[in-house]
Amino acid sequence: MAENGLLLVISGPSGCGKDTIIHEVLQRLDGEGFLSVSMTTRPKRGEEIHGVHYYFVSEAEFRRNIEDDQMLEFAQYGENFYGTPVGHIRSLLAEGKTVILNIEVTGGKNVRRLLPFAVEIFVAPPSLPELRRRLEHRGTETPEAIEKRMEIAKRELACAKDYDYIVINDALEDAVEDVMAIIRVSKLKTDKMLLKLSEVTDYAES
Amino acid sequence: MAENGLLLVISGPSGCGKDTIIHEVLQRLDGEGFLSVSMTTRPKRGEEIHGVHYYFVSEAEFRRNIEDDQMLEFAQYGENFYGTPVGHIRSLLAEGKTVILNIEVTGGKNVRRLLPFAVEIFVAPPSLPELRRRLEHRGTETPEAIEKRMEIAKRELACAKDYDYIVINDALEDAVEDVMAIIRVSKLKTDKMLLKLSEVTDYAES
Repeated sequence: MAENGLLLVISGPSGCGKDTIIHEVLQRLDGEGFLSVSMTTRPKRGEEIHGVHYYFVSEAEFRRNIEDDQMLEFAQYGENFYGTPVGHIRSLLAEGKTVILNIEVTGGKNVRRLLPFAVEIFVAPPSLPELRRRLEHRGTETPEAIEKRMEIAKRELACAKDYDYIVINDALEDAVEDVMAIIRVSKLKTDKMLLKLSEVTDYAES
Repeated sequence: MAENGLLLVISGPSGCGKDTIIHEVLQRLDGEGFLSVSMTTRPKRGEEIHGVHYYFVSEAEFRRNIEDDQMLEFAQYGENFYGTPVGHIRSLLAEGKTVILNIEVTGGKNVRRLLPFAVEIFVAPPSLPELRRRLEHRGTETPEAIEKRMEIAKRELACAKDYDYIVINDALEDAVEDVMAIIRVSKLKTDKMLLKLSEVTDYAES
């Protein structure tokens, strides 16, 4: 019963603030919410913990996951593979937990296929000039890299229509409250509530 | 553009507490939320105000509304007709308001036909014995009338599956927060957000 918990997919352009939103939401979920953990073939560094920062696996194991259709998405950067395995997500959902998947727009399509019950949120910036301002404010990227991110953002925004909800991150607190409300309401949807409703009606009248 | 605002249909068995929930929700919406006003052919009494407590109309006007398919539901009690006209709902929605329609389960089907964009909530009691306790606690009805209400409640609960959301009214504050979250989230649905999203992307970059 992978449907017991709630799977939340969150996508949005770089600079839209989705990482900060997810961090805040996980804090408020207080042990009931988990961020999906990625799998990688790169070596473990310093303080990193297997199962927390990444699942560190061999290339053979990574490839086996791909062949077994167990990867929601994956990509190769240099020598190393990175991807999102579906197994741990399924077991958290079976325990009734809320799992947040911070995923690129391109990965969203595979989620819809493998985990069709996912609730999908697209986080958008309030405007394109504001997105540019946020990217420039980071001060970590060249003007060329920012131009490229803006181009990618425009393509990603065109995919927002495929998501269930659109949250515009104008003020962080509002956006966090929006996501918290989506989590609350997703559990009130009729298909999620039918089991509870059967308890209401089956309860023997004395 | 009747879709600018939000139309919330709330149904549930007598004694489930939906009137109290609606009263609380309207207070919190603070001028942005309206309860749909019924139409009747019975004479105005005492302090009643046309357009607030009821639309007081002639039987000819009431019948014209039925013929013009302008009534979401109607019934005759004794000499008088009572019903829910769709016109005022449509104009409030066009102004972007939230309209709450407190309607019987049998009326829900007609809403789905005339106003398919409505968000429908079924309010359920936590259990049948608790519903009976609440009805008895009112102290206004005969044991026979309570038996009849319990039978109707069971039939109504069987219709809950046709609603978008099921709110179990175990604790009033939680149920009110559930409805408030549904209102918030309904405005974040992708089809409602596409206009706002176009403002994000169209905004000329300087």
